[in-house]
Amino acid sequence: MKIVSLQDFDLRREVDYGTPQQNERVKQIVNDVKAEGDAALLRYTKELDHAELSAGMLRVTEAELSAAYERVENSFIQAISTAAKNIRAFHMREKRNSWMDLQPDGSILGQIIRPLKRVGVYVPGGKAAYPSSVLMNVIPAQVAGVPEIVMVTPPSTGGSEGINPYILVAAAEAGVNEIYRVGGAQAIAALAYGTETIAPVDKICGPGNIYVALAKREVYGAVDIDSIAGPSEIVVLADESADPEYVAADLLSQAEHDEMASAILVTPSRELASLVAAEVQRQLELLPRRSIASASVENYGAIIVTESLHEGIAVVNALAPEHLELMVADPMAYVGLIENAGAIFLGAYSSEPVGDYFAGPNHIIPTNGTARFSSPVDVDDFIKKSSMIYYSKEALMQNGAAIMELARGEGLEAHARAIEVRLKREGKAGEVNGV
Amino acid sequence: MKIVSLQDFDLRREVDYGTPQQNERVKQIVNDVKAEGDAALLRYTKELDHAELSAGMLRVTEAELSAAYERVENSFIQAISTAAKNIRAFHMREKRNSWMDLQPDGSILGQIIRPLKRVGVYVPGGKAAYPSSVLMNVIPAQVAGVPEIVMVTPPSTGGSEGINPYILVAAAEAGVNEIYRVGGAQAIAALAYGTETIAPVDKICGPGNIYVALAKREVYGAVDIDSIAGPSEIVVLADESADPEYVAADLLSQAEHDEMASAILVTPSRELASLVAAEVQRQLELLPRRSIASASVENYGAIIVTESLHEGIAVVNALAPEHLELMVADPMAYVGLIENAGAIFLGAYSSEPVGDYFAGPNHIIPTNGTARFSSPVDVDDFIKKSSMIYYSKEALMQNGAAIMELARGEGLEAHARAIEVRLKREGKAGEVNGV
Repeated sequence: MKIVSLQDFDLRREVDYGTPQQNERVKQIVNDVKAEGDAALLRYTKELDHAELSAGMLRVTEAELSAAYERVENSFIQAISTAAKNIRAFHMREKRNSWMDLQPDGSILGQIIRPLKRVGVYVPGGKAAYPSSVLMNVIPAQVAGVPEIVMVTPPSTGGSEGINPYILVAAAEAGVNEIYRVGGAQAIAALAYGTETIAPVDKICGPGNIYVALAKREVYGAVDIDSIAGPSEIVVLADESADPEYVAADLLSQAEHDEMASAILVTPSRELASLVAAEVQRQLELLPRRSIASASVENYGAIIVTESLHEGIAVVNALAPEHLELMVADPMAYVGLIENAGAIFLGAYSSEPVGDYFAGPNHIIPTNGTARFSSPVDVDDFIKKSSMIYYSKEALMQNGAAIMELARGEGLEAHARAIEVRLKREGKAGEVNGV
Repeated sequence: MKIVSLQDFDLRREVDYGTPQQNERVKQIVNDVKAEGDAALLRYTKELDHAELSAGMLRVTEAELSAAYERVENSFIQAISTAAKNIRAFHMREKRNSWMDLQPDGSILGQIIRPLKRVGVYVPGGKAAYPSSVLMNVIPAQVAGVPEIVMVTPPSTGGSEGINPYILVAAAEAGVNEIYRVGGAQAIAALAYGTETIAPVDKICGPGNIYVALAKREVYGAVDIDSIAGPSEIVVLADESADPEYVAADLLSQAEHDEMASAILVTPSRELASLVAAEVQRQLELLPRRSIASASVENYGAIIVTESLHEGIAVVNALAPEHLELMVADPMAYVGLIENAGAIFLGAYSSEPVGDYFAGPNHIIPTNGTARFSSPVDVDDFIKKSSMIYYSKEALMQNGAAIMELARGEGLEAHARAIEVRLKREGKAGEVNGV
């Protein structure tokens, strides 16, 4: 792992907006499904996923869900059930109530908080199908109170046997109501516009390949979408008290994700830097995914040695990483200084996989420096707010003149008259003209 | 105003993504300002806004702010100051604290809530410059705790005398720290990437023309942006108790905004429908902006007569309007049935301008049916959240096996080993292998 100066390092990666051909193709698929419904959906499923289905076969049955439980080890079911419980408990704490502000003049102002009505979760096929991501997308929606949560996943997900049973068990544990075996841009179009079999949703979330990402951008506006995630990142900020074996293992757990993933150590300790570099090399050799991890370490990994821990914090704030581990002697003394980081792991035992799978906070976290202005997925992503304004007659009579003054200041006379017509009726016109 | 059935009416309008030429032009402006900084910013300001400025002249001075107060009527200053107070009081209630969940095993999970560091607000020039929109963009950011709020507005805003003094007074009352006389795509690029004179921001909000909207889309990702607003809309849901004069005045206050604005009455009362149609015609003739309002009424206005009030509510939920007035005898009995509406005004005295200018809730509200899944601007738009995970040694020893089970279920061995290395060190490897 190379030791570099900060000037030589930029965490930002270009976002992939696809080739013009990919964009054209996605537009065509989306428009066809929008226009033709199930017919186009089934046609593209045959063409692109090589699965010949009828409309009646799209929805996964209760029997298939039960069968999935038979195919998965009990220890996995127990572990994912505990994880689901922890994730639910954490997200329950984020929930907010509608509120009212009752004013002395009888007016009531407020904010009404409601769940979205119907949410679609995309789950990729093949090796990118992660049961933990099912929990992390579905549970916040469920806690928000979304009554209809629908999942789509390509028919080829589990190879010859159908959909990956780990995904199905995760979906059942999280509380998904409907599952359809469709994938790609055609699945996104079906969720956005609806077909005879799949009712349209209000929001689509979940990761996918470039076609899925482009389709989400294409339907945005008709429905809401989540953000398009970049490659995963970790920054470990460590002092001389940190254990090099732990630091190296945590860096590698990020690097194994994919070749674009980024793992960075920031430390004022030259000694720790050398020890971690050696330890990364040693552990890397023993990993099943060492070719992926070593490409990641080679291209996007680094050890940045700083003058001080405080300079290290400045580096972290400039990088605004998705995951930050504070492996320092007194982590609570530094957490208040971290301005930009999606998730902050404190101390020697808060290894990133604790948060990836189990502790409770969401593992879908802003990447590529966007933690400067965005946040991990949470319950807020599945609610909508409405303002409520009940103005009493007394309040309008008292404040009408000021409202008319502001409307006329903007040249919007009809706005002023909507107030004036009410003031006149109550015999307040004189006061109005007297303003 | 025409009386139509719901089937003949669709509130949705196409979003304007600009011509290819406009898109190309905006890309060029953004790239030039990104590459050349002030030099390009000043060049485009000369070319497009016909103002020849030096870098030193970009920032509006304290003296100009004071002079603006001299040019504005005291009654306006008083009214906007009261409005600012009300808006601040409402948004203060939305503010949330960071929180922690202390667990019995010594672990601490939490969510850290912080303001964005620096926010840019675009204020259009000419007749589209609304002081009230300055308050509605700036105050939520200020309440969120954003330490640096910067405003940009074209140099031509106020004609020969410089920037519109009403805008400057609103900015000062709201608490803007820096104001620059730049506009268009070049101003958006300066906010996103920074120049020698203007430091870059984390988020850009505020309305603008098509070039501003395209520039915001172009820089999105480098910074956050607010949503792109469509034309304004009102739906009045009224029963036979409603006053036709009030209903008509409120519909027209929306229609005068622009020719694309939409004003709709939904009512089960045929009698009210006829009275409002006649009253709209009568009041329309007396309006200074009657040509705009009548185009809006003609093309996007409608009276929809329903079978019942409950059918009317279904119509409202399908339209998902920006503004909804419930002008019925007992509005509180219906507010719980409204699923989709950006702002809900209850009863005869809660005329929309009350909310546009004064009451406190934000007037920047989702348009074009997006109230199904999005919300009025509020303090949440100017904060970011970080998850915090402090796992105790006890917690890791207890739960490590389950975390490893989940990691290995996804084929991510390095994730499992980051846990295993810690369990082994504590002599828990045996238990791990026993899982």
